[in-house]
Amino acid sequence: MTGLVNRQIVLRRRPTGLVRDGDTELIERPAPEPGEGEALIRTTYIGIDAAARTWLDDQRGYLPPVQLGEVVRAAGIGEVVASRCAAYEVGDVVTTLSGFQEYVIGRDDLFTTPVPRDVDQQAMLAVYGSTGATAYFGMTDIGRPQPGETVVVSAAAGATGSLAGQIAKIAGARVVGIAGGPEKCRAAVEEFGFDACIDHRVDVTAGLREHCGARVDVYFDNVGGPILDAVLGRLAQGGRVALCGVISSYLTGEHPGPANYTNLLARCGLMQGFNTLSQWHRFDEAFTALQAWQSDGRLVYRAQVFDGLPHAVDALNGLFTGANVGKTMVRVG
Amino acid sequence: MTGLVNRQIVLRRRPTGLVRDGDTELIERPAPEPGEGEALIRTTYIGIDAAARTWLDDQRGYLPPVQLGEVVRAAGIGEVVASRCAAYEVGDVVTTLSGFQEYVIGRDDLFTTPVPRDVDQQAMLAVYGSTGATAYFGMTDIGRPQPGETVVVSAAAGATGSLAGQIAKIAGARVVGIAGGPEKCRAAVEEFGFDACIDHRVDVTAGLREHCGARVDVYFDNVGGPILDAVLGRLAQGGRVALCGVISSYLTGEHPGPANYTNLLARCGLMQGFNTLSQWHRFDEAFTALQAWQSDGRLVYRAQVFDGLPHAVDALNGLFTGANVGKTMVRVG
Repeated sequence: MTGLVNRQIVLRRRPTGLVRDGDTELIERPAPEPGEGEALIRTTYIGIDAAARTWLDDQRGYLPPVQLGEVVRAAGIGEVVASRCAAYEVGDVVTTLSGFQEYVIGRDDLFTTPVPRDVDQQAMLAVYGSTGATAYFGMTDIGRPQPGETVVVSAAAGATGSLAGQIAKIAGARVVGIAGGPEKCRAAVEEFGFDACIDHRVDVTAGLREHCGARVDVYFDNVGGPILDAVLGRLAQGGRVALCGVISSYLTGEHPGPANYTNLLARCGLMQGFNTLSQWHRFDEAFTALQAWQSDGRLVYRAQVFDGLPHAVDALNGLFTGANVGKTMVRVG
Repeated sequence: MTGLVNRQIVLRRRPTGLVRDGDTELIERPAPEPGEGEALIRTTYIGIDAAARTWLDDQRGYLPPVQLGEVVRAAGIGEVVASRCAAYEVGDVVTTLSGFQEYVIGRDDLFTTPVPRDVDQQAMLAVYGSTGATAYFGMTDIGRPQPGETVVVSAAAGATGSLAGQIAKIAGARVVGIAGGPEKCRAAVEEFGFDACIDHRVDVTAGLREHCGARVDVYFDNVGGPILDAVLGRLAQGGRVALCGVISSYLTGEHPGPANYTNLLARCGLMQGFNTLSQWHRFDEAFTALQAWQSDGRLVYRAQVFDGLPHAVDALNGLFTGANVGKTMVRVG
């Protein structure tokens, strides 16, 4: 027995909309013992992604739903405190599916990735890890922005959107963000270097007309819903839509289909979904590119840090109430 | 002056739904004189495609709308009867944008393509020309069916769908059609060699469940609407949707968006529109492959021939009333 206490937030009831009192519970359990081939990892930061909310619904996405009684699933970063796995030594730093808890078991599999011990752990979660990889693969593999093209990114002030837009700028494109409210729009332009940002609470259609002229070459979509439809309505010949998320529907389960998908026909366009799991073997490529850009100042991030495991649910809800800018994370312990 | 009379069907009023009396008019005009660099082509067959109906609406697709007073646009095949163009001699056979008329001017451009003089002109329109190229490029470039995969094709008894399904069979896939009514379903299976065909007038969802099991790897979509949505709901991991048409909306202008596009995310799927214009430089590749398959009996077609220019509008309407099987064409003169 390690003798360690593991505080966990477990699912008690499937939430409707935001996660409310009684949907989850903070409990204490003994930390698990690592078996042969396993390591015990102490969580330092939990990354808060909209996907975490989708896993609480009883629907199979690219990962199965969290079952009642199980720990809320989330990506995170931590340090190895005990190891019976050849891949890890005590003191190693790894990204893993930490979940909303203080300790987790890791193995030598695609969910757990060792990172340099001296890495900036906030930057790792915000830029070099799966968030950055999502922006990187979605923009470079599907979006493929060319110099002078117009790229639109929704949830532009969010963790993934802010990076996706900057990656398109590095590729030489003109980048127009879409975000909710003047503060986020200001952050997209002044902090993340977007050429313009449309406040969707004002008028997306007018904003697109003003800032994108006739045509959108690339759309990196985090939101789905009417915004996806509006952007598809202005797709350029050969336009590419990288589908990264449907945050507009995560609380309601509803997602009206985009009637303007017919522009994919008229313009020979492409709309493609992706997730980073399928690109695990290329994470080194993304890590190297993202770290280089961040080191030389071409890629900036903002971390919104909540302090302490008990605030993890608030941090998650903040993604849906519009409170958060940049990468949301929870510092644990 | 050639002294030839050119009978034409011109657009008088934009139709609502089917094309009715008064929407078009059959008129006679002197056949045009070919100018320098032009040839006069006598139409032998007009190909009847659903796209012809879309060009009568006042909406810009990949070609501009037909204006009031202009000839109804359609692809066709004909013979050169006078030439001031180095690319053509009298007696040459060409595919061109004939339109609903007896004579048309052709140039040495991407709309007019010479074909072997001894070609079977019905087979040219039905298989080797733009209809076959549409099926070929959509299925091989976007669908990319692999042996053992499940491929679904809508409008399976139609000109393009019947070929697309056979091309997928040649690639070694299992092919399930969707068509309207028992006669078309029988044609898809017995004549075109589909493994099964779902009658969408009965129950698409149940049919997909029965014939596709859990997953659709490739969908060649000619219809859009609720059928597209139903198929997207069963998309396999890495599934590909080739968007070829939205025939369900061509008469009404309405096309509910496919809410199940979110499966493109969950399954890392792809949905891509295309048209043959952008692949004009590869028509030889398609022609060669299609002719070889047809010659050795692996690709069959059915031509539904209407006799005489005055029946062209009936032929076009037949695409939407469900009357036509295979490639619809009008024999002229």
